[in-house]
Amino acid sequence: MTPMRINIADKLSRIEDQWAPKIVAEMDGFQIKLVKLEGDFVWHSHPETDEAFLVIEGRLRIDFRDGAVMLEQGEMLVVPKGVEHKPFAEAECQVMLLEREGTVNTGDAAENARTSDPSAKI
Amino acid sequence: MTPMRINIADKLSRIEDQWAPKIVAEMDGFQIKLVKLEGDFVWHSHPETDEAFLVIEGRLRIDFRDGAVMLEQGEMLVVPKGVEHKPFAEAECQVMLLEREGTVNTGDAAENARTSDPSAKI
Repeated sequence: MTPMRINIADKLSRIEDQWAPKIVAEMDGFQIKLVKLEGDFVWHSHPETDEAFLVIEGRLRIDFRDGAVMLEQGEMLVVPKGVEHKPFAEAECQVMLLEREGTVNTGDAAENARTSDPSAKI
Repeated sequence: MTPMRINIADKLSRIEDQWAPKIVAEMDGFQIKLVKLEGDFVWHSHPETDEAFLVIEGRLRIDFRDGAVMLEQGEMLVVPKGVEHKPFAEAECQVMLLEREGTVNTGDAAENARTSDPSAKI
Protein backbone atom coordinates (compact mmCIF):
# COMPACT_ATOMS: atom_id res chain seq x y z
CA MET A 1 0.00 0.00 0.00
CA THR A 2 1.45 3.37 -0.96
CA PRO A 3 1.82 5.90 1.87
CA MET A 4 -0.77 8.67 2.14
CA ARG A 5 -0.01 12.13 0.79
CA ILE A 6 -0.49 14.88 3.38
CA ASN A 7 -1.27 18.40 2.19
CA ILE A 8 -0.21 20.88 4.87
CA ALA A 9 -2.46 23.74 3.70
CA ASP A 10 -5.51 21.47 3.51
CA LYS A 11 -4.88 20.20 7.02
CA LEU A 12 -4.38 23.72 8.37
CA SER A 13 -7.59 24.92 6.74
CA ARG A 14 -9.48 22.38 8.83
CA ILE A 15 -8.06 23.54 12.16
CA GLU A 16 -10.49 25.88 13.87
CA ASP A 17 -9.10 26.17 17.38
CA GLN A 18 -5.88 27.88 18.40
CA TRP A 19 -3.20 26.38 20.68
CA ALA A 20 -4.47 22.86 19.96
CA PRO A 21 -1.88 20.86 17.98
CA LYS A 22 -3.28 18.20 15.65
CA ILE A 23 -1.31 15.12 14.61
CA VAL A 24 -0.92 14.83 10.84
CA ALA A 25 1.77 12.14 10.63
CA GLU A 26 3.61 9.67 12.84
CA MET A 27 7.02 8.09 12.48
CA ASP A 28 9.11 5.98 14.83
CA GLY A 29 7.57 7.31 18.02
CA PHE A 30 7.57 10.91 16.83
CA GLN A 31 4.62 12.94 15.67
CA ILE A 32 4.33 15.77 13.19
CA LYS A 33 1.63 18.19 14.29
CA LEU A 34 0.10 21.38 12.96
CA VAL A 35 -1.12 24.20 15.16
CA LYS A 36 -2.46 27.73 14.92
CA LEU A 37 -1.13 30.12 17.54
CA GLU A 38 -2.13 33.62 18.51
CA GLY A 39 -1.34 35.53 21.67
CA ASP A 40 0.64 34.36 24.64
CA PHE A 41 1.27 30.83 25.83
CA VAL A 42 2.48 29.61 29.23
CA TRP A 43 6.06 29.02 30.35
CA HIS A 44 6.79 25.30 30.22
CA SER A 45 9.35 22.70 29.24
CA HIS A 46 9.22 19.13 27.98
CA PRO A 47 11.51 17.00 30.15
CA GLU A 48 11.17 13.99 27.83
CA THR A 49 11.49 15.37 24.31
CA ASP A 50 13.22 17.88 22.11
CA GLU A 51 10.65 19.89 20.17
CA ALA A 52 11.02 21.39 16.69
CA PHE A 53 9.00 24.41 15.53
CA LEU A 54 8.74 25.28 11.83
CA VAL A 55 6.73 28.38 10.87
CA ILE A 56 4.48 27.65 7.89
CA GLU A 57 2.81 31.07 7.86
CA GLY A 58 3.11 34.20 9.97
CA ARG A 59 5.63 35.04 12.68
CA LEU A 60 6.30 33.25 15.93
CA ARG A 61 8.37 34.52 18.81
CA ILE A 62 9.68 31.96 21.25
CA ASP A 63 10.77 33.38 24.58
CA PHE A 64 13.47 31.70 26.60
CA ARG A 65 14.60 32.64 30.09
CA ASP A 66 17.71 34.25 28.62
CA GLY A 67 16.39 35.73 25.39
CA ALA A 68 13.88 35.41 22.58
CA VAL A 69 13.99 34.15 19.00
CA MET A 70 11.69 35.55 16.30
CA LEU A 71 10.85 33.01 13.63
CA GLU A 72 9.54 34.15 10.26
CA GLN A 73 7.84 31.95 7.68
CA GLY A 74 10.23 29.19 6.62
CA GLU A 75 12.30 29.39 9.77
CA MET A 76 12.62 26.76 12.48
CA LEU A 77 14.35 25.94 15.72
CA VAL A 78 14.70 23.00 18.06
CA VAL A 79 13.96 23.51 21.75
CA PRO A 80 16.07 20.99 23.68
CA LYS A 81 14.33 18.86 26.27
CA GLY A 82 14.03 20.52 29.65
CA VAL A 83 14.51 24.06 28.33
CA GLU A 84 11.80 26.47 29.46
CA HIS A 85 10.11 28.34 26.64
CA LYS A 86 6.99 30.35 25.90
CA PRO A 87 5.63 30.83 22.36
CA PHE A 88 4.02 34.15 21.48
CA ALA A 89 2.36 35.34 18.28
CA GLU A 90 1.11 38.89 17.79
CA ALA A 91 -1.13 37.72 14.93
CA GLU A 92 -2.24 34.19 14.18
CA CYS A 93 0.57 32.05 12.85
CA GLN A 94 0.62 28.50 11.54
CA VAL A 95 3.27 26.16 12.79
CA MET A 96 4.50 22.62 12.25
CA LEU A 97 5.69 20.83 15.38
CA LEU A 98 7.80 17.74 15.66
CA GLU A 99 7.94 16.01 19.01
CA ARG A 100 7.83 12.64 20.71
CA GLU A 101 4.39 11.00 20.62
CA GLY A 102 2.11 11.82 23.51
CA THR A 103 3.74 15.18 24.23
CA VAL A 104 1.32 17.56 25.93
CA ASN A 105 1.51 21.12 24.63
CA THR A 106 1.85 22.67 28.09
CA GLY A 107 4.57 20.19 29.11
CA ASP A 108 5.46 20.36 32.78
CA ALA A 109 3.23 23.37 33.50
CA ALA A 110 0.16 22.65 35.60
CA GLU A 111 -2.87 21.81 33.48
CA ASN A 112 -4.46 25.07 32.41
CA ALA A 113 -6.72 26.70 29.84
CA ARG A 114 -4.12 26.17 27.10
CA THR A 115 -3.72 22.43 27.70
CA SER A 116 -5.06 20.43 24.78
CA ASP A 117 -5.57 16.76 23.92
CA PRO A 118 -2.18 15.38 22.81
CA SER A 119 -3.84 12.65 20.73
CA ALA A 120 -6.02 14.91 18.55
CA LYS A 121 -5.59 14.21 14.84
CA ILE A 122 -6.74 15.95 11.72
CA MET B 1 21.66 29.80 25.62
CA THR B 2 18.77 30.34 23.24
CA PRO B 3 18.42 27.79 20.42
CA MET B 4 19.65 28.76 16.98
CA ARG B 5 17.19 29.96 14.35
CA ILE B 6 17.39 27.98 11.10
CA ASN B 7 16.29 29.63 7.87
CA ILE B 8 15.29 26.94 5.37
CA ALA B 9 15.74 29.11 2.25
CA ASP B 10 19.18 30.28 3.37
CA LYS B 11 20.29 26.73 3.98
CA LEU B 12 18.95 25.55 0.62
CA SER B 13 20.71 28.39 -1.19
CA ARG B 14 24.01 27.01 0.06
CA ILE B 15 23.44 23.49 -1.24
CA GLU B 16 25.20 23.04 -4.57
CA ASP B 17 25.05 19.29 -5.13
CA GLN B 18 21.98 17.23 -5.86
CA TRP B 19 21.01 14.00 -4.09
CA ALA B 20 23.24 14.88 -1.11
CA PRO B 21 21.14 15.54 2.00
CA LYS B 22 22.58 18.03 4.50
CA ILE B 23 21.75 17.99 8.20
CA VAL B 24 20.27 21.28 9.41
CA ALA B 25 18.94 20.23 12.82
CA GLU B 26 19.05 17.31 15.22
CA MET B 27 16.62 16.19 17.88
CA ASP B 28 16.42 13.07 20.01
CA GLY B 29 18.27 10.83 17.60
CA PHE B 30 16.49 12.20 14.55
CA GLN B 31 17.85 14.55 11.95
CA ILE B 32 16.18 17.15 9.79
CA LYS B 33 17.92 17.36 6.43
CA LEU B 34 17.54 19.42 3.27
CA VAL B 35 18.23 18.08 -0.19
CA LYS B 36 17.93 19.08 -3.83
CA LEU B 37 16.73 16.34 -6.13
CA GLU B 38 16.55 16.09 -9.90
CA GLY B 39 16.18 13.03 -12.09
CA ASP B 40 15.93 9.45 -10.96
CA PHE B 41 17.15 7.84 -7.79
CA VAL B 42 17.73 4.16 -7.00
CA TRP B 43 15.26 1.70 -5.49
CA HIS B 44 16.03 1.25 -1.81
CA SER B 45 14.52 0.98 1.64
CA HIS B 46 15.59 1.92 5.15
CA PRO B 47 15.17 -1.13 7.39
CA GLU B 48 15.87 0.91 10.54
CA THR B 49 13.88 4.11 10.13
CA ASP B 50 10.69 5.65 8.88
CA GLU B 51 11.47 8.59 6.60
CA ALA B 52 9.40 11.74 6.09
CA PHE B 53 9.58 13.82 2.90
CA LEU B 54 8.23 17.39 2.81
CA VAL B 55 8.43 19.27 -0.49
CA ILE B 56 9.65 22.82 0.06
CA GLU B 57 9.75 23.76 -3.62
CA GLY B 58 8.98 21.94 -6.85
CA ARG B 59 7.38 18.54 -7.38
CA LEU B 60 8.59 15.15 -6.20
CA ARG B 61 7.27 11.80 -7.29
CA ILE B 62 7.95 8.86 -5.03
CA ASP B 63 7.58 5.49 -6.70
CA PHE B 64 6.59 2.45 -4.69
CA ARG B 65 6.42 -1.12 -5.93
CA ASP B 66 2.64 -0.87 -6.06
CA GLY B 67 2.13 2.72 -7.18
CA ALA B 68 3.46 6.26 -7.09
CA VAL B 69 2.66 9.41 -5.14
CA MET B 70 3.18 12.89 -6.60
CA LEU B 71 4.01 15.47 -3.96
CA GLU B 72 3.56 19.17 -4.72
CA GLN B 73 5.03 22.03 -2.72
CA GLY B 74 3.69 21.88 0.84
CA GLU B 75 2.88 18.19 0.67
CA MET B 76 4.53 15.38 2.59
CA LEU B 77 4.45 11.68 3.23
CA VAL B 78 6.08 9.17 5.55
CA VAL B 79 7.75 6.10 4.03
CA PRO B 80 7.56 3.33 6.64
CA LYS B 81 10.75 1.46 7.46
CA GLY B 82 11.47 -1.39 5.11
CA VAL B 83 9.25 -0.10 2.30
CA GLU B 84 11.02 0.09 -1.06
CA HIS B 85 10.80 3.48 -2.72
CA LYS B 86 12.44 5.52 -5.45
CA PRO B 87 12.27 9.32 -5.58
CA PHE B 88 12.07 11.01 -8.98
CA ALA B 89 11.95 14.69 -9.92
CA GLU B 90 11.48 15.89 -13.49
CA ALA B 91 12.91 19.30 -12.56
CA GLU B 92 14.99 20.14 -9.51
CA CYS B 93 12.95 20.13 -6.34
CA GLN B 94 13.86 21.04 -2.79
CA VAL B 95 12.91 18.69 -0.02
CA MET B 96 13.05 18.45 3.76
CA LEU B 97 13.77 14.99 5.12
CA LEU B 98 13.25 13.68 8.60
CA GLU B 99 14.91 10.41 9.52
CA ARG B 100 16.90 8.66 12.20
CA GLU B 101 20.45 9.95 12.60
CA GLY B 102 23.05 8.25 10.47
CA THR B 103 20.60 7.20 7.76
CA VAL B 104 22.31 6.76 4.40
CA ASN B 105 20.33 8.12 1.48
CA THR B 106 20.58 4.95 -0.57
CA GLY B 107 19.56 2.77 2.38
CA ASP B 108 19.94 -0.95 1.72
CA ALA B 109 20.93 -0.50 -1.93
CA ALA B 110 24.56 -1.29 -2.74
CA GLU B 111 26.77 1.76 -2.50
CA ASN B 112 26.51 3.61 -5.79
CA ALA B 113 26.97 6.97 -7.49
CA ARG B 114 24.03 8.45 -5.56
CA THR B 115 25.33 7.44 -2.12
CA SER B 116 26.30 10.51 -0.10
CA ASP B 117 27.87 11.23 3.28
CA PRO B 118 25.13 10.83 5.91
CA SER B 119 26.91 13.17 8.31
CA ALA B 120 27.18 16.19 5.98
CA LYS B 121 25.86 19.39 7.57
CA ILE B 122 25.12 22.81 6.24
